[in-house]
Amino acid sequence: MISVGILGGSGYAGKKLLQFCTSHPFVSEYKVYGNKTAGTLISDIFPELTGQVTDTKVESIENLSFSHDLYFVALPHGEALKYVPAIIKNGKKVIDLGGDYRLDDKDEYEKWYGINHSSSELLNQKIYGLADYYGTQYSNTNLVANPGCYPTATLLGLLPFTAGFGDEIISSSTIAYSGTSGAGKTPKQDLLMAEMDGDVSAYKVNSHRHQPEILQTLKKFGFNSPFSFTTHLLPAAVGIYATTSVHLRNNVDEKTVKEYYKTFYENSPFVRLREVPPHMTWVVNTNYCDINISINDKVMIITSTIDNLIKGASGQAIQNMNKLYGWDEVLGIKAQGAKNVSVY
Amino acid sequence: MISVGILGGSGYAGKKLLQFCTSHPFVSEYKVYGNKTAGTLISDIFPELTGQVTDTKVESIENLSFSHDLYFVALPHGEALKYVPAIIKNGKKVIDLGGDYRLDDKDEYEKWYGINHSSSELLNQKIYGLADYYGTQYSNTNLVANPGCYPTATLLGLLPFTAGFGDEIISSSTIAYSGTSGAGKTPKQDLLMAEMDGDVSAYKVNSHRHQPEILQTLKKFGFNSPFSFTTHLLPAAVGIYATTSVHLRNNVDEKTVKEYYKTFYENSPFVRLREVPPHMTWVVNTNYCDINISINDKVMIITSTIDNLIKGASGQAIQNMNKLYGWDEVLGIKAQGAKNVSVY
Amino acid sequence: MISVGILGGSGYAGKKLLQFCTSHPFVSEYKVYGNKTAGTLISDIFPELTGQVTDTKVESIENLSFSHDLYFVALPHGEALKYVPAIIKNGKKVIDLGGDYRLDDKDEYEKWYGINHSSSELLNQKIYGLADYYGTQYSNTNLVANPGCYPTATLLGLLPFTAGFGDEIISSSTIAYSGTSGAGKTPKQDLLMAEMDGDVSAYKVNSHRHQPEILQTLKKFGFNSPFSFTTHLLPAAVGIYATTSVHLRNNVDEKTVKEYYKTFYENSPFVRLREVPPHMTWVVNTNYCDINISINDKVMIITSTIDNLIKGASGQAIQNMNKLYGWDEVLGIKAQGAKNVSVY
Amino acid sequence: MISVGILGGSGYAGKKLLQFCTSHPFVSEYKVYGNKTAGTLISDIFPELTGQVTDTKVESIENLSFSHDLYFVALPHGEALKYVPAIIKNGKKVIDLGGDYRLDDKDEYEKWYGINHSSSELLNQKIYGLADYYGTQYSNTNLVANPGCYPTATLLGLLPFTAGFGDEIISSSTIAYSGTSGAGKTPKQDLLMAEMDGDVSAYKVNSHRHQPEILQTLKKFGFNSPFSFTTHLLPAAVGIYATTSVHLRNNVDEKTVKEYYKTFYENSPFVRLREVPPHMTWVVNTNYCDINISINDKVMIITSTIDNLIKGASGQAIQNMNKLYGWDEVLGIKAQGAKNVSVY
Repeated sequence: MISVGILGGSGYAGKKLLQFCTSHPFVSEYKVYGNKTAGTLISDIFPELTGQVTDTKVESIENLSFSHDLYFVALPHGEALKYVPAIIKNGKKVIDLGGDYRLDDKDEYEKWYGINHSSSELLNQKIYGLADYYGTQYSNTNLVANPGCYPTATLLGLLPFTAGFGDEIISSSTIAYSGTSGAGKTPKQDLLMAEMDGDVSAYKVNSHRHQPEILQTLKKFGFNSPFSFTTHLLPAAVGIYATTSVHLRNNVDEKTVKEYYKTFYENSPFVRLREVPPHMTWVVNTNYCDINISINDKVMIITSTIDNLIKGASGQAIQNMNKLYGWDEVLGIKAQGAKNVSVY
Repeated sequence: MISVGILGGSGYAGKKLLQFCTSHPFVSEYKVYGNKTAGTLISDIFPELTGQVTDTKVESIENLSFSHDLYFVALPHGEALKYVPAIIKNGKKVIDLGGDYRLDDKDEYEKWYGINHSSSELLNQKIYGLADYYGTQYSNTNLVANPGCYPTATLLGLLPFTAGFGDEIISSSTIAYSGTSGAGKTPKQDLLMAEMDGDVSAYKVNSHRHQPEILQTLKKFGFNSPFSFTTHLLPAAVGIYATTSVHLRNNVDEKTVKEYYKTFYENSPFVRLREVPPHMTWVVNTNYCDINISINDKVMIITSTIDNLIKGASGQAIQNMNKLYGWDEVLGIKAQGAKNVSVY
Repeated sequence: MISVGILGGSGYAGKKLLQFCTSHPFVSEYKVYGNKTAGTLISDIFPELTGQVTDTKVESIENLSFSHDLYFVALPHGEALKYVPAIIKNGKKVIDLGGDYRLDDKDEYEKWYGINHSSSELLNQKIYGLADYYGTQYSNTNLVANPGCYPTATLLGLLPFTAGFGDEIISSSTIAYSGTSGAGKTPKQDLLMAEMDGDVSAYKVNSHRHQPEILQTLKKFGFNSPFSFTTHLLPAAVGIYATTSVHLRNNVDEKTVKEYYKTFYENSPFVRLREVPPHMTWVVNTNYCDINISINDKVMIITSTIDNLIKGASGQAIQNMNKLYGWDEVLGIKAQGAKNVSVY
Repeated sequence: MISVGILGGSGYAGKKLLQFCTSHPFVSEYKVYGNKTAGTLISDIFPELTGQVTDTKVESIENLSFSHDLYFVALPHGEALKYVPAIIKNGKKVIDLGGDYRLDDKDEYEKWYGINHSSSELLNQKIYGLADYYGTQYSNTNLVANPGCYPTATLLGLLPFTAGFGDEIISSSTIAYSGTSGAGKTPKQDLLMAEMDGDVSAYKVNSHRHQPEILQTLKKFGFNSPFSFTTHLLPAAVGIYATTSVHLRNNVDEKTVKEYYKTFYENSPFVRLREVPPHMTWVVNTNYCDINISINDKVMIITSTIDNLIKGASGQAIQNMNKLYGWDEVLGIKAQGAKNVSVY
């Protein structure tokens, strides 16, 4: 049993984190630390959680205690830099849900995030916690950088092909759509229901911070072909749908590739390989990533979908906690009693 | 540990039932019986349940076995009449999620449902399972009629006032809105996204079958004033929001009424009394019913909201199962670890 | 041909006003006056209007010119008080889309709006412009108070019955739902797509400012029975659906009432009486109000629906302009070429 | 003034066609011909059109008259083949909104549509009516194949670059999302609000019939690089958003390309070039196509958006009618009074 500190936690991903921690069998207690919300009851921030979480007041982050075993950091980028080094120094573990420790390279971070990285020595000590890919290597670190929502969906779809058939790739283009909860809880005119109902728009075209995060991991698998990444908002609260179009040098056999994916994910309880393009609603409110691949005439279309707040944030964070402590990775984020069922 | 049979189960409420039964600690196994879906894998009917439920084929309802301890019946009205008597005769328990056994009076049933009731002797043996109201009287029956979705929301909001202050009522009007999952999974033009997006419409005005169901229970508490009940579809998949306007003879004190509600529901873990009108999203995906009352100048406005598929169907059915067997009524339908928190 | 000034005009109703003025055959030119938006191009405020309106810069409202013939005032309540008296004094006409001149009584205004009314002498000079009811009496005024969105839907539904059968009413309860554009364009957390998707909530229960506005007009028709009015937000951008439940002393004949409604609205080109409850999408993007009535067993249910931004704001404002100038009232707000078609 | 026959017309695009024909200044009358709807009043098929169109009964398509000047054919593919040849033979004009005459090649048609083409001699007599591209060449034909919705959005975005900079293209990938009205009005489970709310899914991956239609036109401009095309449904009723990712051989200058687009569309009143990615709501209910291009580091992202029922069907059909008759192409599909405004 461990004690958990949650920094931030008043946002959409934070809410899920509170729910998961409440029902996790090995989390004995948790405390939430915040700035503006300090002194507020959890049930006043999230009235819907009344009766579903142990109701406590948010502590001021100024009074952050180092007595917890593990800290989930759900702060805006730049803010995590203020707290993570001290927590690590105190010998405790951190899972950072933000972007501050995802990139390996200080310069790359400063270029894309526009701020100085004051604890870049930690960048190479961290694990980039793409939980469904990595196996057992979590034992040597106290710092997990939880992947971004888009990179999770994109990488889980494209990584196996890169690993197994990367030389076949002429070019790849990922075009992803997200529910608006991904844009956060801060009121903005563009995010109003009255604006977003029936709307779609691309944003941060050619400039999204998740692009270098995706490329960094792809490159570790030898990826060296042209790549583009374009994000959109869609009229829904939750979910990410990523479609990756890969142009191929040759007619790669679809069946062979599917077998490769199957083997690649055979120990990944949260990846479901599908025979048809998945529906986003299949994964909403779950920690699953559903993936389909279709190859025809030198074109491979990969569709992958996740719940941006769970698999793309707090669910994967719990999965990473489970891996950090050597527990069954499905604990607290998968319905009890259900046996795994293979799809292919 | 019990064995469960599910008749029907390929609809929206059935899906939730499968999930609840999978993770319920005292359900050792379940089998699904169906007509058109016989022979189909659960994961083909509900691809999203892959890995979340034990995947089995639907049995033909022709081959219904009486070896289970409890049967959930999720069939269209009229259909339950074919199976429930035999199950009861075999000494097994039934929770019927449909309308066939909710009304006490055979004539009333035949008037509203337009078919002959072939097992009306069971009507007075059943319990009308409005789980959050009834206390301990479940021991004497094998048949629970699970309330309709609208009656659940309406009655939980209006019953306490009727019980405590019924003489003050001049008239009551309930106007309720439901997500379209309440209209079922059968394709109809009116229910298409292309029709329903941005749409609202009233339906079955002055003729909804849930009206006699509501009145039957209200009358048991002495209700004898004019009542109206009007239902609408709203552009959402899930949820019911019921607003009841009560015109009063005198200026009843709001605080006194709120105290009465609090006492009325002090042992009801799934009723949350709110100081502000609840949001429907607060209860979606839960078994809660959130209720607010506001009294001003001889007008009382009651707002109550539920998830139509959970509290209004399968969640309440599980709660009724828990009560039938004398188990903690929150088992399998409430997040583990969370303590109850009072709101007022 | 007239010249028009638009005060405000950067909100949702303002946008429609710009479109209507652009294509109205008797509006030769218009100018928009604003505060925060002064100096901004219309097409920067509303990129979607590019090419659809004559693109000009918003003038500072500080430099308001009195050279226009007619002024549409689309300002927050309280703000209109600063400009309307001077416009009237300069002999020009005003159609106020806000709430400042709707109530007849200064005290009532100050009670509900919480501010002092500095030009209450105008309250009795104005016409309350419920355009589909009033006939020819627009010639004696320069000031039209454009009705609120909820009052428009509610009154058009309930007024005829009040006028013809008011003595039969025991009590009435209007429960109305609105798309979130009714709450305006200012960013608020509660109005985010991420919050509102799949949500419903009641608001301003027993305290909405449109209640005295509705009652003021009803009382002119002898209405003196209990009334309640409750508003909700629904997950849509546009539209109002109002359901009024009327409890009756006797079994009033439905057919007789329908005939009365038909006669009442025989000269109202924008009221469509329906044989079934209307769908909200039937009226969205139009100036219509669709109404259905159903009477059964001493209960009358009136459903009425409008586009809150058009019939509930700018469309009715144009209709009022047409009436002020003695033009065909459908000019600029009804598709050309279509002949009227009776429904009953 | 012309007389118009509409074959089909009970679907979503048909409804818009009726509205446009009603208010078009040069359409004196129209008649609707149908199968299942024969004998039904327009206002019974589309209650929302009551008072907005001249209400008539649908004629049986068996009794098709050749006395009209122009025929809009809005039938499922395969059905148009039965009527178009006879109309043409009678010397009348046809605008076919379906897919039967879009492809130039009989074999290609039969491969993708799976049926025999019985009037392939017409394939080379038709004009492929991508109205915003083609200039004055409509005089020599009686048959216009109205483009598909996806091809309209995709081609208007990609054609100029192909024409001006085609040699720079390594590969292109179009990933498009459509509101569900594009899937038609026939009830299907997958299209229910209860399924589609909050959902996204790809469909017809690597097999959509609009792919050969797009390629056919691209190739006329020399396009000969790898292309992929993937379609999705999104939780909205109306609109298409197409994002095309183009990988480039060199760093093409964005400003130069933008100037080229501007010149390309300088006479196209319905194309709006945007400095930011367009919002889909900007074009819904209009005949506009809004386009943005962004080039960075050998990646060009083209976003283009249309109303699938208007620019992608009936609005473009009216535009094509205007061009066939040599009328101002904006007649009947653009707000009166508005002057065109350039965006760049």
